[in-house]
Amino acid sequence: MKPFDDACLEESPLHALLAPASIAVIGASNDPTKRGYKAMLGLIQGGYSGAVYPVNPKADTILGVRAWPDIKAVPKAPALALICTPAATVPALIEACGRRGVKGAIILASGFGETGAAGARLERDMLSRARAGGVRLIGPNTSGVFNLHYRFNLLALDHLRAGDIGVVSQSGNMLLSLALEAEHHGQVGFSTYVGPGNQSDLGFDDYLRYLGEDPHTRVATLYVEGFRDGRAFLDAARKVSAAKPVVVYKSGATAQGQQSASSHTGALAGSYPMTVDLLRQAGVNVVPYSDDILPVAEGLGQLQRSPGRRVAVIADGGGQATIAADRLAEAGLELATLTADCQARLSAALSAQASTVNPVDVAGATDAHPALLATCMAIVAADPGVDAVLLVGMFGGYARRFDESLADDEMRGAETMVELAGTAVKPVVVYSLYAPVKPPALTRLRTAGVPVYASIEKAVSVLAALSERGAYLDRPVPPALPPAVPGSRGQALVAGARAKGRSLLEPEAKALLAEHGIGVLDERLVRDADELADAARVFAGTPVAMKVVSPDIIHKSDAGGVALNLEGEAALAEAYAGILRSAREYDSHARIDGVLVTPMAPKGVEVIVGLMRDDTFGPVVMFGLGGVLVEVLEDVAFRAAPLSREDAAGMLEQLKARRVLDGVRGAPGVDKDALIDLLVSVSRLMEAYPDITELDLNPVIAYPDGYAVVDARILLATDEESAP
Amino acid sequence: MKPFDDACLEESPLHALLAPASIAVIGASNDPTKRGYKAMLGLIQGGYSGAVYPVNPKADTILGVRAWPDIKAVPKAPALALICTPAATVPALIEACGRRGVKGAIILASGFGETGAAGARLERDMLSRARAGGVRLIGPNTSGVFNLHYRFNLLALDHLRAGDIGVVSQSGNMLLSLALEAEHHGQVGFSTYVGPGNQSDLGFDDYLRYLGEDPHTRVATLYVEGFRDGRAFLDAARKVSAAKPVVVYKSGATAQGQQSASSHTGALAGSYPMTVDLLRQAGVNVVPYSDDILPVAEGLGQLQRSPGRRVAVIADGGGQATIAADRLAEAGLELATLTADCQARLSAALSAQASTVNPVDVAGATDAHPALLATCMAIVAADPGVDAVLLVGMFGGYARRFDESLADDEMRGAETMVELAGTAVKPVVVYSLYAPVKPPALTRLRTAGVPVYASIEKAVSVLAALSERGAYLDRPVPPALPPAVPGSRGQALVAGARAKGRSLLEPEAKALLAEHGIGVLDERLVRDADELADAARVFAGTPVAMKVVSPDIIHKSDAGGVALNLEGEAALAEAYAGILRSAREYDSHARIDGVLVTPMAPKGVEVIVGLMRDDTFGPVVMFGLGGVLVEVLEDVAFRAAPLSREDAAGMLEQLKARRVLDGVRGAPGVDKDALIDLLVSVSRLMEAYPDITELDLNPVIAYPDGYAVVDARILLATDEESAP
Repeated sequence: MKPFDDACLEESPLHALLAPASIAVIGASNDPTKRGYKAMLGLIQGGYSGAVYPVNPKADTILGVRAWPDIKAVPKAPALALICTPAATVPALIEACGRRGVKGAIILASGFGETGAAGARLERDMLSRARAGGVRLIGPNTSGVFNLHYRFNLLALDHLRAGDIGVVSQSGNMLLSLALEAEHHGQVGFSTYVGPGNQSDLGFDDYLRYLGEDPHTRVATLYVEGFRDGRAFLDAARKVSAAKPVVVYKSGATAQGQQSASSHTGALAGSYPMTVDLLRQAGVNVVPYSDDILPVAEGLGQLQRSPGRRVAVIADGGGQATIAADRLAEAGLELATLTADCQARLSAALSAQASTVNPVDVAGATDAHPALLATCMAIVAADPGVDAVLLVGMFGGYARRFDESLADDEMRGAETMVELAGTAVKPVVVYSLYAPVKPPALTRLRTAGVPVYASIEKAVSVLAALSERGAYLDRPVPPALPPAVPGSRGQALVAGARAKGRSLLEPEAKALLAEHGIGVLDERLVRDADELADAARVFAGTPVAMKVVSPDIIHKSDAGGVALNLEGEAALAEAYAGILRSAREYDSHARIDGVLVTPMAPKGVEVIVGLMRDDTFGPVVMFGLGGVLVEVLEDVAFRAAPLSREDAAGMLEQLKARRVLDGVRGAPGVDKDALIDLLVSVSRLMEAYPDITELDLNPVIAYPDGYAVVDARILLATDEESAP
Repeated sequence: MKPFDDACLEESPLHALLAPASIAVIGASNDPTKRGYKAMLGLIQGGYSGAVYPVNPKADTILGVRAWPDIKAVPKAPALALICTPAATVPALIEACGRRGVKGAIILASGFGETGAAGARLERDMLSRARAGGVRLIGPNTSGVFNLHYRFNLLALDHLRAGDIGVVSQSGNMLLSLALEAEHHGQVGFSTYVGPGNQSDLGFDDYLRYLGEDPHTRVATLYVEGFRDGRAFLDAARKVSAAKPVVVYKSGATAQGQQSASSHTGALAGSYPMTVDLLRQAGVNVVPYSDDILPVAEGLGQLQRSPGRRVAVIADGGGQATIAADRLAEAGLELATLTADCQARLSAALSAQASTVNPVDVAGATDAHPALLATCMAIVAADPGVDAVLLVGMFGGYARRFDESLADDEMRGAETMVELAGTAVKPVVVYSLYAPVKPPALTRLRTAGVPVYASIEKAVSVLAALSERGAYLDRPVPPALPPAVPGSRGQALVAGARAKGRSLLEPEAKALLAEHGIGVLDERLVRDADELADAARVFAGTPVAMKVVSPDIIHKSDAGGVALNLEGEAALAEAYAGILRSAREYDSHARIDGVLVTPMAPKGVEVIVGLMRDDTFGPVVMFGLGGVLVEVLEDVAFRAAPLSREDAAGMLEQLKARRVLDGVRGAPGVDKDALIDLLVSVSRLMEAYPDITELDLNPVIAYPDGYAVVDARILLATDEESAP
């Protein structure tokens, strides 16, 4: 892990807010049902050492602390104001904070943008007064903040341990749930918590950068309903994930959930699969289930990464060994193949019945000597073909199950495991069915930073996260890219089309692509009989396709504007006339720029490539296989532009139907390098041409040698869209 | 639930073994590390009331109970013998048991079939002596047995509550894991447990039937590595699941897991997706994760079923409402649309901020009055559009989070929920983030049979299982089928082919199918110039396909034996000659029976239909979409033959790419009824023709009106295979 020191922490503008030297509680209260009471109680009970200034015009003291009638009256400008009063009062209070020199405020109240137009106006008013007064804002509609290493806790949550998991959660109940899970676990603790609320000023990207800098945080854990600025978050994630793990649970995975999410926070949930792909590209560990958040955060915080995907399983029961093998395979992990030497050493340590093929089943050999499990773990950890070790079974419960006298042996086993975990670069993870009972051997492991899970499924989720993170850190770091440069012809085409208030015509789009080295089929635009004769000569002997070219006809087939498999001048002439006739019948006002003639593309694997400008994430590339796979199964991959070659290769690998690219049913595989070139080139086009709003290459036919873009559509911004 | 009484229980041959009147413990021991000690301890500590006869030639007493030198010496024939001695001693002991009149034996030892050929011989020897002596066997290699309602516990597991979950588990650690989870839960209890071990005599089907009859069991829960007789298990499951829920976790979901499983028990794991489909067809709730076993068993045991898929969610936090909505959608459940009346009643009960659109978010209205949550649950439960109610959030924890004084209000809320659960036919399920803390209100719910989960994901798994079971129970019960009858032509074709020692040729297969009303393309077998001319005349004006017919050429395309899209007599003649030439070049010894001429099938949706004889499950029908979907994504459905129309319709619905059948990219939908007819007809062919071992219709082209079988392959048993 990258070393941090306090000097580094001081740099963050959030330091003053999340570890404040003093705090005013505006709306502090003696009424136990009020948040202004809870916050005061949290500060006092938590042992916060800075100055606390309760502000309440109607009270002399709050929980025994001298109160002040308003923020002006507070004797020294506090570093932070916690505002517990209703929404309508907030803008004026923020203005007063700015005048008093308060640099940051936390706003608990709801009733802002999430409730509709009037709330949104109130929120804008608050924000402009904050900007004018130099006050940074957490919230509004935040569940609060704590920083346990500074004994700063506005939530009055008890039973919290200070630890190394930093949390940012848009749901207060989720924080509460993680806190109770941690309490129940016993050894897991938190560093900083922030509820970002409406992210009016500060947002997920800011909080993530803070957690990246915070020396007490070893893993950043985020529950996200919506990003305020997705592109900024990806930038922050790339930066932070280079140094420490970033775990994200993104809610709104389904249309049903998205509907629920947007009624809740007013945040645009975006497409879930796209969000997941983009977060992973930026080094984030995305967890699909809320139950996985804490286990994965714990495991990543303690173990950081795995050098690879090959797991050795030590089990004291065949059934759970099989479950582990199933789950590992589903998670994309492998059962390591143990060397003969390793197996011989296991045989020597165990009985003849033991299975020394991974998953290793000790077959009763440990019943009277559970520490043998630790011996086996050390043996497999020394095998160069093993990247991680998973213990599965009843370790920690031998004393209870068999004989109390085994407790010492179990504790010796735990010590060996702790030692192993301390020296091996390979992660060591323990599943024990006795984990809920918390026997001493397991508590010893947890205290020493060896994660212990009560679920095989969770243990495997953690191993998968460690391996994913290891692969991310080991990827070749892409070279810095020079700025993307438009081509002179492309620039002229775009400028010309924009001047006419339209997008690029198909031949223009293809010309632009060709200028950037993207392989398009040879083609001729035909506007009269001479050009038709010319095209017939050029493509003689090859069947051709003909397509109408018109800025007014989007769905060419519907307009009768497409003819396929034509050969010979007569057939071309007939099709040419027919296409023009159909197009005019379809839309008599359509401007028709001609008919495009291209050779029919030979058969190959149909793929599609897209480039779009996402509202929150900016330019995003999409890749998928053509036809029913993309339409029905939505088997597509997304990456934020620009792409490295590694990113592009990952898109190909990610498809469920990726085997089609390798060739099935006797078909040859496609030229993946060429597709990677294509994706990388396409990914830079929005940067080179800021007017491009959408690009669709559909289909592209991929061949064993190269590919051909058969149809291309490039949409340009209208004047309104491209306003700076 | 179907009522059971003890009279009914008495019928099961397993009663004597699983609730024995007396027991001999052969190999009983005073050594605490031995299983013969554990078993004695379990019987004594558990309070078993029958006679116990320890058998040990070297001891006078075992744990204070008088011991006997051998089974002959035991004064009264015990109902059951528990055999704790090593494998090699077992066959002789079983024989002695038979002589002594013992009707059942439990064999703990491993070292039988699971270890190889020598062990398998020993197992066969043991079984034949058991059969000869009239002794039924549990095991060998069993983890043991308990029946808590009879205080009969051979496992010496403490902290077990008697309850209504019956368990059969091929993994002892899995039972231990469930027991610890139940102990930790506090309110969940078990009825009977059996470890089936190698299923030498009694197997999963027998144990499941017993649990079906056992009046103390409300849900049968099975951890299965392999079935001894899959077809018998399906029969038992169909019978038992009509009366009570059957929950199965099948291990070996992946190739990696299957490999591990077969090295463990020696059982054939079979194809996991097929097994899952067949179990579901028989009314089993299959749980995909081991973590789900106990929660789903608890929920199904208590609530049995849901009338539908429409769930109302009451939440006290928007974030967890969204998570619930996501998980419900992923599980195939719907958010119920609440009526205006229902929403008005919710509004009246809650504050203005509350969202009364499902998921209902109380938005703070319950902070001071948590019993309001129960009021809301009752309101939505009364909505006719709601099938089940899910509470999500911090119920049970209000007192701790806000104010101790809320404890009474929470308890009143719990009472309302209990009342609601008792009167509504709609299941009521609670997720609380305070569940791990076990506050009194949640304990009250659990005690009264309202399941409470510490995980939204688990709560949703339970709702999905309840809804799946409800749909199963509500399905139209298929009419009893008359025996399948072969056609006279089909019978002659099969007999003729068998006499020649070969399978059916393609035209024979199609003739057989046609006789059973299955739609095949018109065709002509061409063997000479006259027949060729005849075929050319019959199909004039239609492009045709030509395929070589030979019992020796399986891969017709590879042999150059296929020509497509032919029109006109000349083209047919040329193709005919070419096919014969290529086939002879491919295999000069191949018997060639002619060339099949069929019209080219018009374009449509390609599907495949298969029928195979599975080693353990018997005849199984497969259905999938053709092409890359089946090859790469394995998007197929399985059902045990014979199929009801409901079964067949379920196969179409189950495909991930099912939307293709409804028509995509402007294509029309297919005739699903015709496909269902096809599947039902095919499913009976193995019964009608016991010689058929495999049938492949690939492809079948489905149209908006009907379908056409384009290629058919029917394999027949060889003489060895069909030996009775």
